[in-house]
Amino acid sequence: MAQVSFTALEGVPRVQPGQDLLPLILQAVEGAGLGWADGDIIVLAQKIVSKSEGRYVDVSTVQPSERARELAAIAQKDPRLVELILSESQEVLRCVPGVIIVRHRIGVVAANAGIDQSNLPQEGSGMSDPALLLPVDPDASARALCDRLRAQTGRRVAVLIIDSIGRAWRQGTTGTTIGAAGMECVRDLRGERDYFGRTLLTSELGLADEVAAGASLVMGQAAEGRPIALVRGLEWQDSGQTSRDLQRPVHQDLFK
Amino acid sequence: MAQVSFTALEGVPRVQPGQDLLPLILQAVEGAGLGWADGDIIVLAQKIVSKSEGRYVDVSTVQPSERARELAAIAQKDPRLVELILSESQEVLRCVPGVIIVRHRIGVVAANAGIDQSNLPQEGSGMSDPALLLPVDPDASARALCDRLRAQTGRRVAVLIIDSIGRAWRQGTTGTTIGAAGMECVRDLRGERDYFGRTLLTSELGLADEVAAGASLVMGQAAEGRPIALVRGLEWQDSGQTSRDLQRPVHQDLFK
Repeated sequence: MAQVSFTALEGVPRVQPGQDLLPLILQAVEGAGLGWADGDIIVLAQKIVSKSEGRYVDVSTVQPSERARELAAIAQKDPRLVELILSESQEVLRCVPGVIIVRHRIGVVAANAGIDQSNLPQEGSGMSDPALLLPVDPDASARALCDRLRAQTGRRVAVLIIDSIGRAWRQGTTGTTIGAAGMECVRDLRGERDYFGRTLLTSELGLADEVAAGASLVMGQAAEGRPIALVRGLEWQDSGQTSRDLQRPVHQDLFK
Repeated sequence: MAQVSFTALEGVPRVQPGQDLLPLILQAVEGAGLGWADGDIIVLAQKIVSKSEGRYVDVSTVQPSERARELAAIAQKDPRLVELILSESQEVLRCVPGVIIVRHRIGVVAANAGIDQSNLPQEGSGMSDPALLLPVDPDASARALCDRLRAQTGRRVAVLIIDSIGRAWRQGTTGTTIGAAGMECVRDLRGERDYFGRTLLTSELGLADEVAAGASLVMGQAAEGRPIALVRGLEWQDSGQTSRDLQRPVHQDLFK
């Protein structure tokens, strides 16, 4: 019987800049009494990775460029926030009232460059308007944690870093992989034949994004958010892929 | 501890046109020895719903229109298949070599109108080139099964019908909800405040699509596909939504 379970780990403390996530992960899994198994996937919310990397910016200190002011007028946003969005982006895909959709520096297409202004401390941080950027290199962060987790646990585990990202034609965000190490991200089904010997119409499966979406169900969004989940029971190969393999190449983008 | 499990049910026989899915679902859950719990979600692959509705067409019998011939030349596809795609669609969004992306009659944006040519019987069907269309009205199909399942089990359950659908900027398909009954499909977080009292940046969650993606992980794509999954452990409201609530309204589509 194929079964996959998604468990949100409890008791993860608020993460401080510079804090190592490895002990938090190990303690949270130990606290849940789940042990480790080959094939386990640790899913981390983007937010705690960004916090551990100290990716805070005080929006009130940003100097907006002329372009940021122009886009801010269209989007009806703070020009300083728009400047921050531009500084995190390769390309602006759409700018309309309320939303700026960009191709982020790391390749992900996301509204407002994934910049997060919720659940951030204001008191004591010295920032009047704190914002949190995406991790510097989420694939590298996942790789480092995956290698160390494998060394510590002796198990064949994988690490995903996920964020809540919107879709072109669908309402609501879904958990989406922005960093990955240790497991195949896109499963190639092109070699597989169906029951009647025809090749499959659907030829590639966004495996890591399906894991990200399932994990998002247990991790929650608001105050009670649980930033670490353990996924158990999925069979996967370690193909050396990263989250970049989930990004459609720009030259194949039909909806630029 | 928040935990959600996705279990693919075994032993589901191949579905024949006109066959009622309710007894199959009840037998599969009983066979797995899982019983029923309030909050259970039954996830059905589009394919078995289409098969039970007898949504087969013999592509070799279709007469292509002039428009179908024109698009077929661009897409490098069989004009008869393209005619079938057009007959299932409201609107063609993109047509390039190898792919035609349409807004389906039921509102979903999908490559090739979700028409499926894999895992279809050829011998004995009398069809030389069988294709399977999406269900006539997947929300209505989900609604009818949900009502009957609730009556039979006495439990507060929900039903999703899912398909593997591509994304604009991401590689690989993900399980996506094309029919839904009994549960909220989009969770509105706009009223929620975060830990520090700010409103959340991410305001709507594509809940049913996250369930669909997680279920796809256990249901598989190829010969060994398991077309029914049971999802247990998720908390949800019954807001009267359908899969249509997951579709971005056409006037809000920034990427037409």
